[in-house]
Amino acid sequence: MSISDSDPTDDAFLGGRLHLLQPARGYRAGIDPVLLAAAVPARPGQSVLEIGCGVGTALLCLGARVPDLSLTGLELQPELAALARANAARNGIAAEIATGDLAALPAAMRARQFDHVLTNPPYFAIGRGTRAALPLRDRAMHETLELADWIAASLRRVAPGGWATVIQKADRMPDLIAAMQPRLGALTLRPIRPRRGRDAALVILSGRKASRAPARVAPALVLHDGARHEADRDDYSAVARAILRDGAAIL
Amino acid sequence: MSISDSDPTDDAFLGGRLHLLQPARGYRAGIDPVLLAAAVPARPGQSVLEIGCGVGTALLCLGARVPDLSLTGLELQPELAALARANAARNGIAAEIATGDLAALPAAMRARQFDHVLTNPPYFAIGRGTRAALPLRDRAMHETLELADWIAASLRRVAPGGWATVIQKADRMPDLIAAMQPRLGALTLRPIRPRRGRDAALVILSGRKASRAPARVAPALVLHDGARHEADRDDYSAVARAILRDGAAIL
Repeated sequence: MSISDSDPTDDAFLGGRLHLLQPARGYRAGIDPVLLAAAVPARPGQSVLEIGCGVGTALLCLGARVPDLSLTGLELQPELAALARANAARNGIAAEIATGDLAALPAAMRARQFDHVLTNPPYFAIGRGTRAALPLRDRAMHETLELADWIAASLRRVAPGGWATVIQKADRMPDLIAAMQPRLGALTLRPIRPRRGRDAALVILSGRKASRAPARVAPALVLHDGARHEADRDDYSAVARAILRDGAAIL
Repeated sequence: MSISDSDPTDDAFLGGRLHLLQPARGYRAGIDPVLLAAAVPARPGQSVLEIGCGVGTALLCLGARVPDLSLTGLELQPELAALARANAARNGIAAEIATGDLAALPAAMRARQFDHVLTNPPYFAIGRGTRAALPLRDRAMHETLELADWIAASLRRVAPGGWATVIQKADRMPDLIAAMQPRLGALTLRPIRPRRGRDAALVILSGRKASRAPARVAPALVLHDGARHEADRDDYSAVARAILRDGAAIL
């Protein structure tokens, strides 16, 4: 029996609250989209756009936490967008998934702005990093736009007073801040550290359009307790467990 | 008896390793320059420039920790520069203190570059913040240059392969990164938190010219133990005590 891109697996997220189909090979969601969703300060009744939503992991984690959101996802790859639609339906969460390119947005999307925009931009700079073997993984992990252009295009979809929330590897933090700082106030950097006293592996950056609130370096989210990994134990910290297993927000 | 700007006090730093004259009123060094000096990765034999050195606190803390440095300070205000010269002499640390304006550098300074440039730029944006009552304090705490111009002019004094180290209030972090990111590699952000789990109050940003090393979000320096201040106790954390009292480096 062969496993191909067209044989999705069915994986549990948020301690089983969500079950998501995703390609067996190629790009698969880790904890990053779950953390991203946990950081979005959405309230019931607000509108949300995820840019590059893949199979819908972040968007549906957010929908599972906050009721009555108007959820929209944009995904370049039709196969992933189809899985995102299936995932929304099978988890009973209403979401509109548009297939399209951030670099050439459908006119209907260009006309809209949202209370919240969230995105987990591709992690590797154009022309850098090891090109992955499979096309799906390849496109999901590499930029079709430069990070600065991805962010600029994303922020144009944020309504005045609305929020943008971005997760990214920590080494892109300066590029992310350079792209967000001119367009947002209340810029907040949250380091995500594997363990206390270590370099951050990821950062979550958020900001608010038309806000004059000062920037913040918020407390780090520390994923694991102890100085090293203890085999045979789920050593997620209590805070990380609450987010990843119980669907808590990052405060 | 009146206390005026011309009656300096004599204050101990680094657990008494350094004794520094500073104006009794007006801008007085807190822990910021001590932390700044502790973060500079200088090795014996290297050249160092502090821009806006005041009475020499950071420069002389660095000179007390690392032997055989060639130390230069630039200070706009002649009264403070004179105290910096006196402070170097009475602590037995060789340092050249130039009186001058970063915005209109003396030609001799414009011709030089240094292995390390450190600076604690003025904290308040031009035209913002409460103007302090005294002229000395006023000029030390307010920008004569915009932060971005201060940083750009400072970075021009860094030799290829040399390092820049900057301390600043955390809410200016995005402006600082936007100014440093195009000109430096190995950009490292170190949050300085009053207590664990709190927003950073200060940040130290460092970077290296002509480096292609990736950016980092380094472990936070946490200044105090416990959730709140315990009266009658010096509750500095062990790491902070080692830096402030024993002259240790920030690793």
